[in-house]
Amino acid sequence: MEMERPMILVSNDDGYRAPGLLALIEAVRPYGDVLVVAPQDGQSGQSHAITVKVPVRVDKYRQEPGLEFYVCNGTPVDCVKLAQNRLLDRKPSLLVSGINHGANSSASVLYSGTVAVAAEGCMYDIPGIAFSLLNHDPHADFMPYVPVVRTIVQSVLEQGLKKGTCLNVNIPNVPLRDIRGIRVCRHARGYWVEEYDRRVDPNNKEYFWLTGEYFNEEPEAEDTDEWALSNDFVSVSPVQVDLTCYGELDRLRSWNLSLNISR
Amino acid sequence: MEMERPMILVSNDDGYRAPGLLALIEAVRPYGDVLVVAPQDGQSGQSHAITVKVPVRVDKYRQEPGLEFYVCNGTPVDCVKLAQNRLLDRKPSLLVSGINHGANSSASVLYSGTVAVAAEGCMYDIPGIAFSLLNHDPHADFMPYVPVVRTIVQSVLEQGLKKGTCLNVNIPNVPLRDIRGIRVCRHARGYWVEEYDRRVDPNNKEYFWLTGEYFNEEPEAEDTDEWALSNDFVSVSPVQVDLTCYGELDRLRSWNLSLNISR
Repeated sequence: MEMERPMILVSNDDGYRAPGLLALIEAVRPYGDVLVVAPQDGQSGQSHAITVKVPVRVDKYRQEPGLEFYVCNGTPVDCVKLAQNRLLDRKPSLLVSGINHGANSSASVLYSGTVAVAAEGCMYDIPGIAFSLLNHDPHADFMPYVPVVRTIVQSVLEQGLKKGTCLNVNIPNVPLRDIRGIRVCRHARGYWVEEYDRRVDPNNKEYFWLTGEYFNEEPEAEDTDEWALSNDFVSVSPVQVDLTCYGELDRLRSWNLSLNISR
Repeated sequence: MEMERPMILVSNDDGYRAPGLLALIEAVRPYGDVLVVAPQDGQSGQSHAITVKVPVRVDKYRQEPGLEFYVCNGTPVDCVKLAQNRLLDRKPSLLVSGINHGANSSASVLYSGTVAVAAEGCMYDIPGIAFSLLNHDPHADFMPYVPVVRTIVQSVLEQGLKKGTCLNVNIPNVPLRDIRGIRVCRHARGYWVEEYDRRVDPNNKEYFWLTGEYFNEEPEAEDTDEWALSNDFVSVSPVQVDLTCYGELDRLRSWNLSLNISR
């Protein structure tokens, strides 16, 4: 009897032609059969969005031994849902996302489609890993970082992840040989200081482009992803999909909220 | 010297004409000056998505004493960012979202634009509350639930919320007099069992509509939002924007991840 090879599901938020996606596919092919379902267009900042108002479509783009590659017109999370519901014939051993063009650390996690793909794996009990490289250059070369991806993929395949959690991995923008190691860390507290670039269109109507700069509220904290990345370490952070703030339950209960209505 | 009235920012994900939004505006007007920035179209399932590939626009829709009302072509989170960056002249004391048509409990929190609005408040240190009514009927009457909104708004204005957290409030679909009280609870563990409704268009190309049913993994657990709602209680859950799973940091560190590369 032939052993079935593990199935590995791959997606991203930069779209099916992104070089980071091709590097990620290369990185995981040795570990099993690969199914790629990637968005047709770039989907940066789409977070955990799903498409409900229009139908989604999915088309086969490439097929070769050990690899099937589909393109979907929806969001990153739509890609995972479609794969899981319509395209997979067995449960994947792993779900990987990326490699994203640019950081998904600290406050950016909330907005990230790359991280949302890995988090969506929690819904189906599939271990998920999101990968990002801190490089926005359209000509960035992702291939040198394949060994980083493989190190973490191997560990997750061996050790598994806790139910309801996935991993968020960021890679600093330095040559591979200058990476000082891999650090497990929490997401730094920080936020985006945003501005809207105001312009006026030819019909004299104003419109706005979102721009912004990240502000780190705790640059000295050595246990954060931001610290790791600015010190040339790969950051690995566990992400949970249960958003309950357990530490606040008791304080809220002490408010003794009650409805004062005449019945 | 005249005391400045508190500023209250209001948004939603069902769009500016949604009856739940109008009920929410009514509910909060007694507490201060109200700025509404709501999406032009329904934005259900948009989660924390932001618009980065196209510019956003915002137009004034209504103005009267104590109320300014704008419509924006972006996502719910875009509405908050635009309000904060371009429309507000002072920091709001409160950010409220909803009242959403349908539940935002358990696994739905991750996909919810309504909850994302409140969570976005954490980025600017504005206490945020998301409200949802478990009623999908397009003719649902939200006005009877104004006292529920006011009870929670008053408490938050008095007590404040911890930095980095907001509240997620769901209201059961029963007449106000039958609501048994307000329960502070965690989000239940659960997921969506999804199916894609497959159709074929007039050009003989297939397309899919996302459909699904919620599955509660722990229906007996009395400390969850799902239990509260199915027992006719209002559920109030604290939500955090730091997605780090702190409980997993030590286990991941024990993996001793290291890069084996020739340097």
